[in-house]
Amino acid sequence: MTKEDSHLERIKFNPYKDKIISAAEAALLIPDQAVVGASGFTKAGDSKSVLPAFAERAAKENVAITLITGASLGQTTDADLANNNALIKRMPFQADSILRKSINEGKVKYVDQHLSETIEQLQEGHIPQVDIAIIEATYIDQNGYIIPTTSIGNSAYFATVAPKIIIEVNNAIPISICGIHDNCVPLEQPRRAAIPIHNVKDKIGESFIRLNPENVIAVVLSNIEDTPAQLSEPDEKTIAISKHLLHFFEQEVKKGKLTYSLLPLQAGIGKVANAVLTGFLHGPFENLTMYSEVLQDSTFELIDSGKMTFASGSSITVTQECYSRLLQNIDQYKDKLILRPQNISNAPEVIRRLGIIAINTAIEFDIYGNVNSTHIGGNKMMNGIGGSGDFARNAYLSIFVTQAASKNNNAISHVLPMVSHVDHTEHDVDILVTDQGLADLRGLSPRERAEVIINNCVHPDYKEELKDYFERAKKQGGHTPHLLEEAFKFHIRFKETGTMKTK
Amino acid sequence: MTKEDSHLERIKFNPYKDKIISAAEAALLIPDQAVVGASGFTKAGDSKSVLPAFAERAAKENVAITLITGASLGQTTDADLANNNALIKRMPFQADSILRKSINEGKVKYVDQHLSETIEQLQEGHIPQVDIAIIEATYIDQNGYIIPTTSIGNSAYFATVAPKIIIEVNNAIPISICGIHDNCVPLEQPRRAAIPIHNVKDKIGESFIRLNPENVIAVVLSNIEDTPAQLSEPDEKTIAISKHLLHFFEQEVKKGKLTYSLLPLQAGIGKVANAVLTGFLHGPFENLTMYSEVLQDSTFELIDSGKMTFASGSSITVTQECYSRLLQNIDQYKDKLILRPQNISNAPEVIRRLGIIAINTAIEFDIYGNVNSTHIGGNKMMNGIGGSGDFARNAYLSIFVTQAASKNNNAISHVLPMVSHVDHTEHDVDILVTDQGLADLRGLSPRERAEVIINNCVHPDYKEELKDYFERAKKQGGHTPHLLEEAFKFHIRFKETGTMKTK
Repeated sequence: MTKEDSHLERIKFNPYKDKIISAAEAALLIPDQAVVGASGFTKAGDSKSVLPAFAERAAKENVAITLITGASLGQTTDADLANNNALIKRMPFQADSILRKSINEGKVKYVDQHLSETIEQLQEGHIPQVDIAIIEATYIDQNGYIIPTTSIGNSAYFATVAPKIIIEVNNAIPISICGIHDNCVPLEQPRRAAIPIHNVKDKIGESFIRLNPENVIAVVLSNIEDTPAQLSEPDEKTIAISKHLLHFFEQEVKKGKLTYSLLPLQAGIGKVANAVLTGFLHGPFENLTMYSEVLQDSTFELIDSGKMTFASGSSITVTQECYSRLLQNIDQYKDKLILRPQNISNAPEVIRRLGIIAINTAIEFDIYGNVNSTHIGGNKMMNGIGGSGDFARNAYLSIFVTQAASKNNNAISHVLPMVSHVDHTEHDVDILVTDQGLADLRGLSPRERAEVIINNCVHPDYKEELKDYFERAKKQGGHTPHLLEEAFKFHIRFKETGTMKTK
Repeated sequence: MTKEDSHLERIKFNPYKDKIISAAEAALLIPDQAVVGASGFTKAGDSKSVLPAFAERAAKENVAITLITGASLGQTTDADLANNNALIKRMPFQADSILRKSINEGKVKYVDQHLSETIEQLQEGHIPQVDIAIIEATYIDQNGYIIPTTSIGNSAYFATVAPKIIIEVNNAIPISICGIHDNCVPLEQPRRAAIPIHNVKDKIGESFIRLNPENVIAVVLSNIEDTPAQLSEPDEKTIAISKHLLHFFEQEVKKGKLTYSLLPLQAGIGKVANAVLTGFLHGPFENLTMYSEVLQDSTFELIDSGKMTFASGSSITVTQECYSRLLQNIDQYKDKLILRPQNISNAPEVIRRLGIIAINTAIEFDIYGNVNSTHIGGNKMMNGIGGSGDFARNAYLSIFVTQAASKNNNAISHVLPMVSHVDHTEHDVDILVTDQGLADLRGLSPRERAEVIINNCVHPDYKEELKDYFERAKKQGGHTPHLLEEAFKFHIRFKETGTMKTK
């Protein structure tokens, strides 16, 4: 079967066959200044042909768009768009070093959003409506509806509301993936119903994305795999963090607060969260479940080992090895997996109802437990808040992990007198873990929190100075003792000397 | 009818009649070091006899408790408890100047919580379980169940789980109040169901609080009205804030985003929020509804005027005049009012589903729209976060109001380079209003937010310095430009010189 035959078999709605054009042609259909809603969540299921073609077009022509996606994109798409000045505004998440540079230079306006809220804000008219949707599809059914690929993100909403739709049919994804998606679009307030999910397995929508076929202006054919995740091996610090956390869970089980199945897990992306999940492979835990955003390698390792019985997410973002294994064996995962729109995977009501254990990564936290997830040095954006706020606020347990110190000679302490940017307030943080230890903050007042955090989580090189800060701040009094003159002294010292250390 | 007769008629469950004792005797039943769960939400429906008697006992004897309530208490109860060193820990909210002093001196450990989360944390075992509940009742029904008074707060949960219960039967509250309460207790995760509220009027529980009558260890008789709210008259600034906001709502209606019925309103306590609501009396708005925590005078003025058709809250906290009018005419309000447990009035899922317009008061906000609702000078607690986070995070529109500047010669600017404490991050703030004007931040990146906030909300005396800060910060770059060395210069200058002004 030639590649083209195989593509045509994937378009089961004949009227679309006349709309097949190249990616470059489709890119010309995107008006300058348009608001584009594109599929893609953490490199998975993104537009791999049309958006890159638009970036190429922008290299030759003065065109730019507002780009709304699920989350970050794969390939070099965000970088190419930024390099060619093709982005006016970007939301709700990104994780690209070149786009990041443009954002920090003020060239691209970045709106960093809770991932559950983008559809809310579009639906409420708080942000401009999508002019054109670009959605990657595994295939198109006989009604002209889309079967998505490896993520859902905001795709179902974009396709429902956009007056113009471009579909990328990607035959690198096996047709048998159909059935893992659960698409739905919320009603507007105040006509909205409860989200009827009472178990991580509950399906509430449809395997396809509904749309008005008359809105489809182009179909583009592609054969490109998702950009693989790069997962570095666990190191001494991530292993230490994982051990502290697994020990904590065991203690909670011993106290009768949890069973060895725990409660549904959420884990942020990255090597620390992945290492924690991998740690469950060797412990006494069993019948684990996940209600998360991104399903990473560790999810599939836990499913393969029999430790995890079900995982719900909004995207599958895995390494090349895991990706190949998954796509070749998709049938055996289908009753253990579900992909949902991100307003559902991250819905406060479902997170609170199910009682999620949320594990997310902090850039830094302070002695009172306020967490910075997004900014370096108080001003420079790293990636974005993503779904960490959706989960941290509503979780049964809100856990943040980071290394106690990093860089050469531990020049950076990740525990500070005061964080330089707040994404999660102390109200929303239950447990903090570094390689040094774990701080259980539940039910503690700020001064009690400071004691536990300084004692358990701080790198030894910084412990004395933080203790001294806290003791002197207490003399000035206050519920949350601080010396505003000194609150950022670690950050300022680093900027001036290249290390947070005094000597 | 003597007072005692009238009381005995209110105890329709005979076994309790043998348990009637004085408040002083009941106070002796509270063990030292106990965790006490008491009724009371923003001065309404609080323990007016037993807790004050416990404070008296603590004046003579070395006893102290952890006190969990709905929110703040009336009379001088929190002050007396603090003065007599009777509080080890206090949660989830307070608003008393003497208790505040003890908290800021580190004498009382205060755990400032989102008001929706106290029951979550108790149920999940994150905070110690309640040893003894003290609940104010209008009367006790034939099953020994409690009909609450002017608030629900966390009472239904406390009465369900506490192994010992003291009931205060207060016959200052008319029996006819029965029917406005909607009590319920959530199941533990993961067995929990969706909260089936799809309209502000929906009732999902029972008019009484269920309990095990065998757990009732004492019944105390009282005849004490709630401590009235003190509402200062609207002044020039609050009227200006109200006008800006009402104008904004009219514009939203003209754009077709809202109707003149708006969406259900939430308003924080205090004169600014009250003035905004009072402003609806004279505008084109109609068929308004409320889904809030505290129902204040303005709610009843709007109901009386026919402008508001229904109000849902967790307490009724009004001035003496309004209180008398309400209690005398409770029957005519009963089909327009409902009181709910605070985990329901403040439930994220209901707030997001109904699409609430949330109006809360800020102590200060910064040029990027981060809000401080709780701390003075970065360290001293004022009251607490209350429900502002529950609403701001999940609302259709999250609005914060404050005066642009205050004190003699406008020595304090309420718009700062950086807030000294963050309760609500920029992600959760849509609209900021001061007497100077309104900043609509929806869909804006941080640099765009700063432009609008500085232009619209800042007092003229501080505009140039904030502009200068922002311009110089931009030169250092960053998504959220800041100069950490100067970020708190307004606060530090105020501490040193008594004014935030340079001259």
